[in-house]
Amino acid sequence: MSSEIANEDCIGWAARDPSGLLSPYKFSRRALGSDDVSLKITHCGVCYADVIWTRNKFGDAKYPLVPGHEIVGIVKEVGSNVDRFKVGDHIGVGTYVNSCRDCEYCNDKLEVHCVKGSVFTFNGVDVDGTITKGGYSSYIVVHERYCFRIPDNYPLRFAAPLLCAGITVYTPMMRHNMNHPGKSLGVIGLGGLGHLAVKFGKAFGLNVTVFSTSISKKEEALSLLGADKFVVSSDQQEMTALAKSLDFIIDTASGDHPFDPYMSLLKTAGVLVLVGAPSEVKLSPLSLIMGMRTISGSATGGTKHTQEMLDFCAANKIYPEVEIIPIQYANEALERLIKKDVKYRFVIDVENSLK
Amino acid sequence: MSSEIANEDCIGWAARDPSGLLSPYKFSRRALGSDDVSLKITHCGVCYADVIWTRNKFGDAKYPLVPGHEIVGIVKEVGSNVDRFKVGDHIGVGTYVNSCRDCEYCNDKLEVHCVKGSVFTFNGVDVDGTITKGGYSSYIVVHERYCFRIPDNYPLRFAAPLLCAGITVYTPMMRHNMNHPGKSLGVIGLGGLGHLAVKFGKAFGLNVTVFSTSISKKEEALSLLGADKFVVSSDQQEMTALAKSLDFIIDTASGDHPFDPYMSLLKTAGVLVLVGAPSEVKLSPLSLIMGMRTISGSATGGTKHTQEMLDFCAANKIYPEVEIIPIQYANEALERLIKKDVKYRFVIDVENSLK
Repeated sequence: MSSEIANEDCIGWAARDPSGLLSPYKFSRRALGSDDVSLKITHCGVCYADVIWTRNKFGDAKYPLVPGHEIVGIVKEVGSNVDRFKVGDHIGVGTYVNSCRDCEYCNDKLEVHCVKGSVFTFNGVDVDGTITKGGYSSYIVVHERYCFRIPDNYPLRFAAPLLCAGITVYTPMMRHNMNHPGKSLGVIGLGGLGHLAVKFGKAFGLNVTVFSTSISKKEEALSLLGADKFVVSSDQQEMTALAKSLDFIIDTASGDHPFDPYMSLLKTAGVLVLVGAPSEVKLSPLSLIMGMRTISGSATGGTKHTQEMLDFCAANKIYPEVEIIPIQYANEALERLIKKDVKYRFVIDVENSLK
Repeated sequence: MSSEIANEDCIGWAARDPSGLLSPYKFSRRALGSDDVSLKITHCGVCYADVIWTRNKFGDAKYPLVPGHEIVGIVKEVGSNVDRFKVGDHIGVGTYVNSCRDCEYCNDKLEVHCVKGSVFTFNGVDVDGTITKGGYSSYIVVHERYCFRIPDNYPLRFAAPLLCAGITVYTPMMRHNMNHPGKSLGVIGLGGLGHLAVKFGKAFGLNVTVFSTSISKKEEALSLLGADKFVVSSDQQEMTALAKSLDFIIDTASGDHPFDPYMSLLKTAGVLVLVGAPSEVKLSPLSLIMGMRTISGSATGGTKHTQEMLDFCAANKIYPEVEIIPIQYANEALERLIKKDVKYRFVIDVENSLK
């Protein structure tokens, strides 16, 4: 049964068909439940997922589709059972807004791996059958479990990209014990995810090498982001010089690329974690067998790690590099994102542009 | 400088060219050094590696090539510094016979990952420049570090396959904490490695499912080896029924096969370890990203695990299924191995057939 009400008081921007073109759209949010938080959205990050679903790349888009899952804002109302948040608090919402809250993964606060499936923040089918709508909108109603406290004094515009890009690289780094100074990290690709992997790596005290297809981001990678080394991946000599030198590689590249050259850079028992989405993974068995190397995947993270990461960023003054845009620029932003023309994350100033 | 001496008192069978055809061959072993053990070989297991190198599949064969790296026998002489073994002891030698003994991996008794490279038991270049020769021969001289004690009363003919096939499946099972009762194990392929993975799995108290391309081994897998379930991998219905049910899969198949169907059988954070050698590994990124699943590789193991595994097999009465053959049958055995016509490991009765 749908809990939607007729009052279409939420304004947003939606895609209507696989062209993905976004335009203004009015809709209703569910009535505030006893465990819910209603959040006035101030900012929303622009993630490649927004491109994927507005353009129906996976074939499951449900139009009208309001994208956006890097959501931050200010609490405007809380349900009667909510005690973690109060009106006026700064909070964030990430890539999922519901789960069963009863399985082994939910019990471990790994809700993204919920046995019954976590409900995505947009284009997801919620337990009541309604289709979720994301953060390119004026407000959202979310069960408090899936809301995160933005630490005091942490600017909301910087918090937005942490809710997807940030947690997506933080989770595998923690899982593979990469938060220990002195270890060596490789980062493939320098977009929204990659630039945060570099920042986290330096905050953890790692030796960070960035791999990119082009030399154009070298100067910024070293001076602005603080990487220790920058390698153009087509430079055979530089790649060979790094053989067996890295403990861990985080691969954020979404374009197709070979894996064997990167696997050869890993030490014995080294791990490459894939967080981008190339069309396939293809490699020689020897890249895995020799040196018992590993390829693993990862997608966002659970609520425990997400809150921990937000607190870590505040404590260590880690801020994403963002380009603030009005909602009216969203279509152009998505086009530029496809062309990788962004340093390093678009953040929509919802509060000041969505009227 | 070579330490070989002119006295060609070691008799063996060698391949002379990429035809791989084995024939009798006399050669010399190095003089016994102070840290060496001289071993009268009683049995040698027949591994697929013997096919690979006698037929020069990797392009690096050094002829005449004496294969065999699942070696067991009786100590006939020890060097002045050797205190772990004495004349008459039953010992084994596996896939490597030297390493630097000074790097982080050697210090951790993971000599197979030696920074300077471990020296393979046959077709390897030893530190003195000589080419190593394997166990299809009457005796071998090996530094005591790379010799293992065969527990009392453990039949030598059964010990042979443990030195490569056994340790190859034991190592990743231990590394990934699969020695805990109640976990679920999948085994792809039921040859020398796979049948031992089943036996180890049952000894660890695991729920074991065997995957095979043909139903012909079903009865034996269940009754003789003790597997809990047998699935023909082309049976979509049975495969689908096992979705997200396995903690771990050990993939011993050397033929090309798809990976995505097996990855979908893993639970969240599940691991597939590749120990066979298909020509490539190809899969969808989503097979890794959804459920943070992992593919890892593994090759044999270090000396600590090898001794531990031999002791474990003796304590738990785990015996490989072997077909004992005379050395004169070696060429036919290799042909049958290529055709997978063996249940489940050929072992050459060197002592009684090599004269």
